[in-house]
Amino acid sequence: MPQALVLELVGEKPPLYPTKYAHGLFFTLLRLFDPGLASRLHEAKRKPFTLSVLGKPDRTVRLRVTTLDDVLFQGFLRTLLQEAPKGLALGHEAVRLVRVLASRDAHPLAGWLPWEELASSPPMSRMTLHFLTPTVFVTSKEGGRTRYTPLPDPRLVAQSLLERWQAHSPLPYGPKEEAALRAVFALDLEVVGFRHLRYGRFFAGKAFLPGFTGEVTFHLWSDSLEVQRAWGRLIQLAFFSGVGAKTTMGMGLVVGMASREGEPGPGSVP
Amino acid sequence: MPQALVLELVGEKPPLYPTKYAHGLFFTLLRLFDPGLASRLHEAKRKPFTLSVLGKPDRTVRLRVTTLDDVLFQGFLRTLLQEAPKGLALGHEAVRLVRVLASRDAHPLAGWLPWEELASSPPMSRMTLHFLTPTVFVTSKEGGRTRYTPLPDPRLVAQSLLERWQAHSPLPYGPKEEAALRAVFALDLEVVGFRHLRYGRFFAGKAFLPGFTGEVTFHLWSDSLEVQRAWGRLIQLAFFSGVGAKTTMGMGLVVGMASREGEPGPGSVP
Repeated sequence: MPQALVLELVGEKPPLYPTKYAHGLFFTLLRLFDPGLASRLHEAKRKPFTLSVLGKPDRTVRLRVTTLDDVLFQGFLRTLLQEAPKGLALGHEAVRLVRVLASRDAHPLAGWLPWEELASSPPMSRMTLHFLTPTVFVTSKEGGRTRYTPLPDPRLVAQSLLERWQAHSPLPYGPKEEAALRAVFALDLEVVGFRHLRYGRFFAGKAFLPGFTGEVTFHLWSDSLEVQRAWGRLIQLAFFSGVGAKTTMGMGLVVGMASREGEPGPGSVP
Repeated sequence: MPQALVLELVGEKPPLYPTKYAHGLFFTLLRLFDPGLASRLHEAKRKPFTLSVLGKPDRTVRLRVTTLDDVLFQGFLRTLLQEAPKGLALGHEAVRLVRVLASRDAHPLAGWLPWEELASSPPMSRMTLHFLTPTVFVTSKEGGRTRYTPLPDPRLVAQSLLERWQAHSPLPYGPKEEAALRAVFALDLEVVGFRHLRYGRFFAGKAFLPGFTGEVTFHLWSDSLEVQRAWGRLIQLAFFSGVGAKTTMGMGLVVGMASREGEPGPGSVP
């Protein structure tokens, strides 16, 4: 089931490239658990995990790890706890594992949600998403170039989440349902407010990528309960899967917050 | 040729619905000049003018009027100057015409540009657009509903401007060139920065519409000089045509500002 952990790692000094090093640590632990799984994951197009460093790291690095796969979660956590007493490393710096926060009570960005509960999410029409780390959508183009969209385009948000649902959920939609959902989201999902929308470039492990952060309210105009239920699932999934590109390198960390019906979205007053 | 005037109108008190009243005044003057033209314009899908009230009106209302058609411009200006001594009205309030600012020296949002000069605009690749009044793109959907996009989607920006060029310029592109330009803009135009991006709802004469304001930097990746020249033309046109929906009701007022090559776009530093 989808899981989110927040690890507190303490070193001598703040790491230079915390996200890149965290990515390295994650794969080091995974190789100890199962080298074959580690290399398969490294090559996989759709990775069943995300990594992000929360806040500006000082000597304490708060590393958020989410997983969408039980074997991966158990392997990672077991190896982490087994290796921690010997000492861990972020880059070349030794760090100590001080705390593992696993529930929402322990940290607002930690927690878990069984797939069955996720699948029975309530129907949703109006929703504010907080994009906490820079988010970008990457589209492949003819001729091999890629195009970056650092905007909360509702079609791209829904598409990204639906792809993750299809790739990682044990209850994917059939091809016909999936196509129908894509079409409805493209037509019926609208941005009805945003605030604190900011542009920035983010060092995503190897290169700087463009991205946006901020709070965006979406409204789904479809009356179909099935479509609203799908949107509800995707929003819940987003907490664990992230959205857009480079979610294993700290981008696309997003948290949903239901708006009450009739309540204006962010920034609705000029 | 494209023209932009700023009129200063002074009344006893600030008007309640300045944009709506300005729209009324514009058509009142136009009917005096040529009732047939006025009703044709009123019905036209693509209107060769824009209207916007600059700043927050107090007793002095600064009304910006742009036109893309010489007959319309001359008719409007002649009738305005002829009627002004008798007194004008914004809604039920009498106003006096105090100044007509016609050149960029007189007001940064006034000026003119012959179509021939516009057509020979220099090629452009990187450009910051300042969306000064709320801007929104309206897309018709299957089933008669419309969808609002209050985001600076590069494809929608280019499409809106290209449509205006085709409708109003004496030098439109042929159908094949137009289709090719649309395709290239959809693929090769990217948002590479933004700042002060805000969402708001705007009273556009009859109803409130959503929209965004702010500064957005676009980069055109195409190497084709022809495409870069077309983008240069559209950016210059934007000053007179506005962009997106309800430009005759104060929305979509946009001013371009070339960025120097190598200079980072707005907000490029996190």
